[in-house]
Amino acid sequence: MYNPYAELSPADIEQRLAAAEACMNDWQKQGLNLDLTRGKPSTEQLDMVSGLGFDQLLSSTDHYAADGTDCRNYGALAGLAEMRALFGGLLEVPAAQVIVHNNSSLKLMYDLVVQCLLTGPPGGSGPWSRLDRVAALCPAPGYDRHFALAASLGLELLPVRMREDGPDMDQVEELVRDPAVKLMFAVPQYSNPDGVVYSGTVCRRLAEMEASPGFCVIWDNAYRFHHLVDEPELCPAILPLAAEAGNPDRFFEFISTSKISYAGSGIAAVAASPRNVEWLLGSLFYQTIGPDKMNQLRHLRLLEAAGGLEALMERHAELLRPKFRLASDMLSARHGNGAVVSWLEPRGGYFIGLHLARGLARAVVAECARCGVKLTAAGAAWPYGHDPEDSCLRLAPTCPTLTELETAMKVLCDAIEVCALRQAAGVLS
Amino acid sequence: MYNPYAELSPADIEQRLAAAEACMNDWQKQGLNLDLTRGKPSTEQLDMVSGLGFDQLLSSTDHYAADGTDCRNYGALAGLAEMRALFGGLLEVPAAQVIVHNNSSLKLMYDLVVQCLLTGPPGGSGPWSRLDRVAALCPAPGYDRHFALAASLGLELLPVRMREDGPDMDQVEELVRDPAVKLMFAVPQYSNPDGVVYSGTVCRRLAEMEASPGFCVIWDNAYRFHHLVDEPELCPAILPLAAEAGNPDRFFEFISTSKISYAGSGIAAVAASPRNVEWLLGSLFYQTIGPDKMNQLRHLRLLEAAGGLEALMERHAELLRPKFRLASDMLSARHGNGAVVSWLEPRGGYFIGLHLARGLARAVVAECARCGVKLTAAGAAWPYGHDPEDSCLRLAPTCPTLTELETAMKVLCDAIEVCALRQAAGVLS
Repeated sequence: MYNPYAELSPADIEQRLAAAEACMNDWQKQGLNLDLTRGKPSTEQLDMVSGLGFDQLLSSTDHYAADGTDCRNYGALAGLAEMRALFGGLLEVPAAQVIVHNNSSLKLMYDLVVQCLLTGPPGGSGPWSRLDRVAALCPAPGYDRHFALAASLGLELLPVRMREDGPDMDQVEELVRDPAVKLMFAVPQYSNPDGVVYSGTVCRRLAEMEASPGFCVIWDNAYRFHHLVDEPELCPAILPLAAEAGNPDRFFEFISTSKISYAGSGIAAVAASPRNVEWLLGSLFYQTIGPDKMNQLRHLRLLEAAGGLEALMERHAELLRPKFRLASDMLSARHGNGAVVSWLEPRGGYFIGLHLARGLARAVVAECARCGVKLTAAGAAWPYGHDPEDSCLRLAPTCPTLTELETAMKVLCDAIEVCALRQAAGVLS
Repeated sequence: MYNPYAELSPADIEQRLAAAEACMNDWQKQGLNLDLTRGKPSTEQLDMVSGLGFDQLLSSTDHYAADGTDCRNYGALAGLAEMRALFGGLLEVPAAQVIVHNNSSLKLMYDLVVQCLLTGPPGGSGPWSRLDRVAALCPAPGYDRHFALAASLGLELLPVRMREDGPDMDQVEELVRDPAVKLMFAVPQYSNPDGVVYSGTVCRRLAEMEASPGFCVIWDNAYRFHHLVDEPELCPAILPLAAEAGNPDRFFEFISTSKISYAGSGIAAVAASPRNVEWLLGSLFYQTIGPDKMNQLRHLRLLEAAGGLEALMERHAELLRPKFRLASDMLSARHGNGAVVSWLEPRGGYFIGLHLARGLARAVVAECARCGVKLTAAGAAWPYGHDPEDSCLRLAPTCPTLTELETAMKVLCDAIEVCALRQAAGVLS
């Protein structure tokens, strides 16, 4: 993207830069300490869940699943039957295709890649660890923890351009011809950070394309139910689509309640083809006797108490909408969407992805940090932390209060201006 | 062990066998359905914990750890500070040497072996997966899930004789000279199934012996606090001992509250040297944002409500003692300890290990199964399920009610007799 401040006259630039520098020095003197780095729910959201009695919903005799399982004792490796059915219904697959586990979907993803390394997925050609090279397609900007996970396990990260309807499928179809490409990451509903919803066409092409045997996609549906708008565009259910396309084993779909109940104490699940579920359970059997079923039961009771998942998510949305509105409106009012910075209007999820004029991202993060406003590190949304244009910023407006967010956004808007002016003046360090 | 029935006259054997067969046929007609297979807590134990208000102990405003951490939100990768301190105190190491995670210590052990395969432990010579052969020492009889875990990850299992004070250290010191031996399993306090407490001498030899670089021991202290007697013999704290011996990185110690609070919803922890903890956290960082801290907080409140860990464990012991007493007394009364069957008097833990006359174990399990009493599969306590003498049985008396246990023990005592008589008569199939 182009820096519009470069069109100003040198005198204008000099004058406006002096004012902007003074403004930033004022911010610095205020000793702010604000944090927009991570996509965490706010205390208000957590209090809303606590207010539904989440931690007291299980009475001293309420320990039994529908089939009589005593949730306090060992067992139920794949999770409670009714929880599997509930998630299955939401993801449009039979309960038998869902494994409900503990509090972290990231952990389930890590364990999936570990099993791929040690034994290889069904239909593949054995353990990935025996191959000289294993690569993962990483739509970017994307989720930093996905990329870090794969890199920590020795996978090579290949960036793929994101478009407004999902990853660039021409590029994906080209890259996937490389037999070393065994994995792809995807956040199909409200991608992290841009909030992109993968279109039906993108999903179909992903399901139908040729790929090496055992190629699989980590379909991280973290924000499947996390809408901010009333009539959300929905990414299609991928597992039925993949089965229809003749590639039933391609997708491992992950969801969690981390941003539905409590971020630290939710439950996570993976849904996959019957063959993949059998494979996952086959190794899970050696790892644990079963998940925390009491927490699963507690979640079932929470959804009842809240009047269902949609009603609960609407309560979250009520708390989140003003924050996304404020952030987007302040950026629009100050800079306009599409000039020095552009972004997709927030429709759901936990982030706003800012695309700045080339070469500004690191400088803006540093300038904000100098003034006590922490942003996610520039480049974090790219494989190996390398943003080729140094232009992407991830904004996480959910956790701070509205007042804190307003201050942080003022600092950010000012920081964008000062950095763009410095760049126009040729003094951006 | 010797079958004393073999000393009877052929006529005596024939007569007694006929009576014993008739007795078993009577049992078979009763259509019993009893299960002594797994070391599960009983409903009475779980009800005792529920009765302490376990599931309602967290009020709707009680979400904060001592340092102000909101336990409902993300974070605290290594667990809550006060939980780490509590476990550290119990295991005689600083809090910083403890990682408190989710509900399964088995999962923590599995993940440890995975990291050893993928990167290798600190001080070792790289990833185990690069080696032609990796072997694990398996004191036997031992815990079937340990052996299955290691075998599922491709490790070779080498049995080690158990003695009354722990594994045969002469054999361990001999076997550990093999550079392929990288791992050892140990249940040092009330070993599964014999209830052996490792002596100070055994522990010191384990800590001091020469072993290949990166050799490590999974020190599964599952029953550390699970005493049945008033003045328990305690296995020494291993981490201080190992540090003193100059092998601080040798032991990874695991504990959990699975048999303290709820078996399915407890919390598990691993304690290790500072270098090992740093290594574990380094990989854990890529796996999850943190454990279920609300469940950790709930456990802290439970221990307060129960008047401390010892008081809570005494309540469990009150419920368990009559069962172990009954099982041991019935066996003694019928067969005597040391004739056709021998066992260590139960002092703690969850099992009684029966040592039958050679060649009887499979037959006794089958005979019990025919009469509706399920026992753990014969051989299960041995690597690869292979008990070389076919003599070991694992009795898990904790889960059934006293009445059920009494019936099951009658069947077992009768089954031992009929099988021993068949063997003496030369008709044991």
